Amino acid sequence: MTMPAEEDFYPSRIDAGETITARRDPVVHGAGTACSEASAALLSRYENNGFFQLDDLFGAREVAEFQEEAERLRSARTLARRNEVIVEPESNSVRSIFDVPCFSDVFDQLARDARLVNWARALLGDEVYLHQSRLNYKPGFSGKEFYWHSDFETWHVEDGMPRMRAVSMSIALTENRASNGPVMLIPGSHRHYVSCAGLTPEKHYERSLRRQEYGVPSTTGLETLLGDREIAVVTGQAGSVLVFDCNTMHGSAGNITPYARTNLFLVYNAVSNALRRPYSGQEPRPEFIARRTGIEPLIPRAATRV
Amino acid sequence: MTMPAEEDFYPSRIDAGETITARRDPVVHGAGTACSEASAALLSRYENNGFFQLDDLFGAREVAEFQEEAERLRSARTLARRNEVIVEPESNSVRSIFDVPCFSDVFDQLARDARLVNWARALLGDEVYLHQSRLNYKPGFSGKEFYWHSDFETWHVEDGMPRMRAVSMSIALTENRASNGPVMLIPGSHRHYVSCAGLTPEKHYERSLRRQEYGVPSTTGLETLLGDREIAVVTGQAGSVLVFDCNTMHGSAGNITPYARTNLFLVYNAVSNALRRPYSGQEPRPEFIARRTGIEPLIPRAATRV
Repeated sequence: MTMPAEEDFYPSRIDAGETITARRDPVVHGAGTACSEASAALLSRYENNGFFQLDDLFGAREVAEFQEEAERLRSARTLARRNEVIVEPESNSVRSIFDVPCFSDVFDQLARDARLVNWARALLGDEVYLHQSRLNYKPGFSGKEFYWHSDFETWHVEDGMPRMRAVSMSIALTENRASNGPVMLIPGSHRHYVSCAGLTPEKHYERSLRRQEYGVPSTTGLETLLGDREIAVVTGQAGSVLVFDCNTMHGSAGNITPYARTNLFLVYNAVSNALRRPYSGQEPRPEFIARRTGIEPLIPRAATRV
Repeated sequence: MTMPAEEDFYPSRIDAGETITARRDPVVHGAGTACSEASAALLSRYENNGFFQLDDLFGAREVAEFQEEAERLRSARTLARRNEVIVEPESNSVRSIFDVPCFSDVFDQLARDARLVNWARALLGDEVYLHQSRLNYKPGFSGKEFYWHSDFETWHVEDGMPRMRAVSMSIALTENRASNGPVMLIPGSHRHYVSCAGLTPEKHYERSLRRQEYGVPSTTGLETLLGDREIAVVTGQAGSVLVFDCNTMHGSAGNITPYARTNLFLVYNAVSNALRRPYSGQEPRPEFIARRTGIEPLIPRAATRV
């Protein structure tokens, strides 16, 4: 007996024009059980907008420890020339480090921290594992822009993530100001799927980590997604956490200010939503970008607040 | 009898390294007579920060008229291929139109409007004339960044403006949001002069209107100027007016949002500060960029508020 071919719920870059269709998955999965009125309000905001922000999750000493660790990794000689380390095209300075827990006990513990993992479990209604992690360093004066994109579109097409059941957490390690290229999101965009025009070239990721060229929505598509809502600009102190659905359209402007912008980006995926073959039909991207083997549910680690 | 060579108060691009020196001119010139407590507070802010904003100078119908006129000019066939019209390097869409009153009665009257001209006279302590005017169209999705610069440095070196006795007014014709690449300024920077490294190439302006490469301060210089102050991000409704000293360091990030950003930029110079030969020793830039002939003091025109 032959298994039927697996259905592609979210085709994109299939050499057709751009289309916008309704999301075919819940936003808040499972019961979405809230333990308090405050968290119920956040779940509702997540459902409607596709994101919320947590301002006071970490103490000042914890944040200082994260900052020191990020600086240590940036200049760690042992990391130089590793594939996990992405450098700026022009200056050669470190722009991103992937698979951060591999190189750092501090961030390994943070990725397992109950304050984060329990939110991921509540939103995804499942056990969760770390699909991707990266430290992003956006330097002062020359931070490049990131154009609008849905992470899920790429994770689906290039990595084989079947459904929308993953959540991203961006932990600010520097202050996110209106001036230094903060994350901007299109509220409500997570409820729609933009199937992008074109095809994916082979080994696209080697270039796309520097500059996105495929899986990019059209300006008309972006205007349709926005409708009469307002683009949200996320500002917040170091230590604040932006929690956003895998399909929320987001981007950021360049940074000409002297203020660097560093964040730790953690993506939790439902164990039931583990990766399959990439829907592009191409070779999977490396494991440090999209975990597909050795997956184990994270056990939430109770933090001793320092 | 030979006249002594004229002193260059603000040398820059003289093939030496960058230096930062104190401003050698007043900020508020003459008596700086304020007609009310509110305007006294604004003069004091201008003195300290190098800028202030006027939110309610124009009525809604006036603003609508300005917006329509800006749209009319952008698509005016009679303007196509004129030197005064600067287009985006890649898309060929209109980025700026210089010498706006030449093409528009609406903006000619606005440039003479007493609500603007009287502020210029109060700040500059002199009769004033229009040194430069331009309509800037920063389109949605693809507006390019403007790196940090002092307008005065360029006006001095390339146009021969002798002293710091000019004031710029940027009238927003679309809402300036935190998200769509608003003007950012370094408060207090107007009190210092950054003499830039390098020399000015011939016919620099033909390229610099698209992308600035000379007369650009170093990152260290910018950090010194900022000190422990905070970069100011100017947001405001259409119709709001940013008034800033000719030497205030400013710039703006790119614009990836769907929100276009259009403004009318008017520069008033003191009649006593009229242009001389460019201090670079090169040919002057065209009159549509820097007025040097036929200068007459503007007679403030009382507006009949529509």
